[in-house]
Amino acid sequence: MPFQLTDDFLSQVEQHIANKDGLALKELLQELHFADIAEILEELNSDEATYLIKLLETELTSEALMEVDDDVREKILDRLSPKEIAAELEEMDTDDAVDMIAELDEDIQKKVIDKIVDEHHAADIVELLKYDEDTAGALMAKELVQVKETWTVAGCVREMRRQAKNVTRVHSIYVTNKQGQLTGRLSLKDLLTAGEKAHISDIFIPKVDYVTVHTENEEVARIMQKYDLEAIPVVDENGKLVGRITIDDIVDFIKDEAEKDYQMAAGLSQDVEADDTIWELTRARLPWLVLGLFGGLGSVYIMQGFEEALERFPILFFFTPLIAAMAGNVGVQSSAIIVQGLANDNVKGSLFNRLVKEVGLALINGSTLGLLVVIFGFIAGLDPLVGITIAVSMLSVIIVAALVGTFVPIILDKRGIDPAIATGPFITTSNDIFGIFLFFFISKLVLDF
Amino acid sequence: MPFQLTDDFLSQVEQHIANKDGLALKELLQELHFADIAEILEELNSDEATYLIKLLETELTSEALMEVDDDVREKILDRLSPKEIAAELEEMDTDDAVDMIAELDEDIQKKVIDKIVDEHHAADIVELLKYDEDTAGALMAKELVQVKETWTVAGCVREMRRQAKNVTRVHSIYVTNKQGQLTGRLSLKDLLTAGEKAHISDIFIPKVDYVTVHTENEEVARIMQKYDLEAIPVVDENGKLVGRITIDDIVDFIKDEAEKDYQMAAGLSQDVEADDTIWELTRARLPWLVLGLFGGLGSVYIMQGFEEALERFPILFFFTPLIAAMAGNVGVQSSAIIVQGLANDNVKGSLFNRLVKEVGLALINGSTLGLLVVIFGFIAGLDPLVGITIAVSMLSVIIVAALVGTFVPIILDKRGIDPAIATGPFITTSNDIFGIFLFFFISKLVLDF
Repeated sequence: MPFQLTDDFLSQVEQHIANKDGLALKELLQELHFADIAEILEELNSDEATYLIKLLETELTSEALMEVDDDVREKILDRLSPKEIAAELEEMDTDDAVDMIAELDEDIQKKVIDKIVDEHHAADIVELLKYDEDTAGALMAKELVQVKETWTVAGCVREMRRQAKNVTRVHSIYVTNKQGQLTGRLSLKDLLTAGEKAHISDIFIPKVDYVTVHTENEEVARIMQKYDLEAIPVVDENGKLVGRITIDDIVDFIKDEAEKDYQMAAGLSQDVEADDTIWELTRARLPWLVLGLFGGLGSVYIMQGFEEALERFPILFFFTPLIAAMAGNVGVQSSAIIVQGLANDNVKGSLFNRLVKEVGLALINGSTLGLLVVIFGFIAGLDPLVGITIAVSMLSVIIVAALVGTFVPIILDKRGIDPAIATGPFITTSNDIFGIFLFFFISKLVLDF
Repeated sequence: MPFQLTDDFLSQVEQHIANKDGLALKELLQELHFADIAEILEELNSDEATYLIKLLETELTSEALMEVDDDVREKILDRLSPKEIAAELEEMDTDDAVDMIAELDEDIQKKVIDKIVDEHHAADIVELLKYDEDTAGALMAKELVQVKETWTVAGCVREMRRQAKNVTRVHSIYVTNKQGQLTGRLSLKDLLTAGEKAHISDIFIPKVDYVTVHTENEEVARIMQKYDLEAIPVVDENGKLVGRITIDDIVDFIKDEAEKDYQMAAGLSQDVEADDTIWELTRARLPWLVLGLFGGLGSVYIMQGFEEALERFPILFFFTPLIAAMAGNVGVQSSAIIVQGLANDNVKGSLFNRLVKEVGLALINGSTLGLLVVIFGFIAGLDPLVGITIAVSMLSVIIVAALVGTFVPIILDKRGIDPAIATGPFITTSNDIFGIFLFFFISKLVLDF
């Protein structure tokens, strides 16, 4: 049953487009879900994709447009007139419409909004555009079903039939008071199983989870995941019900955030995929590699400063990759744990306790590893003093690396900067530099060169 | 409205537990959602938590038990008798019941199942236990609402009232034929707005997305995210409707998978959190650090093999951290992109094309970086031949690192092993070793030492 896009199917589509055979295309694609149309659009070139968008019903294409990768969507929108874009927006739920229009340049935005026929819809979109990008206000849709406490079940069902035409997914019906303030909710199940003459005020649930228009996206996702919600109502500063967020948007948000964090930890500076062009991939990868290069050159510079060790203790220079690797690994582990903890709101307790814990952890890990180094040195016939010196300076490097990896994200987070920046090449590069410096500094003190 | 667990509130809870004041506890906690109870349980010690579980209604505690961290749950279950565990399972939906019972030892599982009063429920749990852990069969619940095509709307509503008592979330009502095979679905909205005498066969939607009991979890998540589904029916090999998976379980799954991949990339061998004990954190972190250590010792060994370079070209040894860092960074970038691509089913096209692309990418990035090295060498007064040798060997290392980072995950994936293993310390350590070897090998060839 699930659709699979085969090369054969794709060639048929491309063939029909080349022949401008609209009828054959419509017949070929008529059974498909918009998500499948989106998959096809992503495999076509921009002109072919635009042809398809213009050909098919806006009811279908508007949904498909929201599903495609934003690069693909950008290229298609470039080829559509404001009037054509407005026609797509007309069909969309307000939350999707706002997402799409926000991607356009401001002057084009104005032209497009002017072309929207449904004034009410246009006004909703303009209202939603005002909200900060990372808040519930920007994520929410204005389509929902709401009833007043004072109505009867029969009246409610009548009103529902009217309102629900525009609402794709009805989970809960939201209950408000006369001023439009959110006071509770009503499940369709309860509505179906209640008597016709009962009043809403008798059967509704006065307890309802909600967020405000200014709540941050991460918090919305956290609440919805914690309470297993599929939709959450959004209220303004006066408690007035103004929109709702559905779980499908949160699922997309969670996935996007996870991918972003993962890529940041791997040193990729923007959203790339395995099948992007060489230029797009280079643009994402090169910046962090250059950072790593400068870190490496910094290490060269530092080691030149300790050149005198070459005479008596050249073996120290054989250990530099090990020191750098340990500093890097420990730093990445620490930062990954903290960054995940901050994202899940799991980082509690005093900073001092955390410092003590990290130092303790580093002491245990570092001592174990140091012991292994001493044993290796002993087996390899290394001067015991040198072996111990290396082990001790490695231990110091590990302690500092753990502290840096733990506290840099925390400090960034407190200053409102995304702590995930401090994972990946940023941490490994800086830890490499100070790690090598600390290693030689301590070795020089002990071995006296 | 959203509950915040304050230190003050927690102390009150702990106080009442110490005084064994059940009444005061019930009064304090009566308004709370099970997810909030779970939050409290995680802050108590195991004995306090068990006391609370035994005190409160199983309707509430069973849900709370599923929400807590598995470590916490394990300790609580250790302190409950099979009869008490069975009482909790009695209240749970079958998918949660199966998850919890699967965590127990097999001999305890049997005792618990024997104690379950509702035989039908026990039979369902036993059936679900048979399915492979990572498939739809293990993820699904048996609670759902299904109606036959041949019924009327009135009959359907009557049947719904009966079935829906046990079903927490009703989105779609699934429609089956006489043999119980899935043939379509019906939305509550459509049911509400249809006439009483209409037949289901007239109003139901014969098109419905589904998965089979053997479909893998990642595939279920992908389908539900792609088609914005909130629940998906599950059929057996004969097309018979046997269960359904709801979006809240998929949200949890997506989040857990993302965290697991992130931690694997950071070199953490199990699920840890920032507030775990030092021993738990050490157990998760030390293994990969030891791996990194052995990699570092391997580098020491390799460099001893090229000791002769110390006499004429000691500066080569100053560049080893840079070479290792570049090999590591490039490898991590490549593997992150591929592993994400494999997870999203985005990795298509022939392997040969991918190889050409990776080599091309590595050439561009490596040459840019090599140029920077040559420039740096020139400014620092380095012998031009040495500078170019370093740049060229760095370029070779980058090409090999990119290929390793790209193809090791692909090969693992083809063999059914989780490709995410090949991210993080595994890649960086192996790339360090061969990178340093390749660097000296090429340098020796060119500079002839």
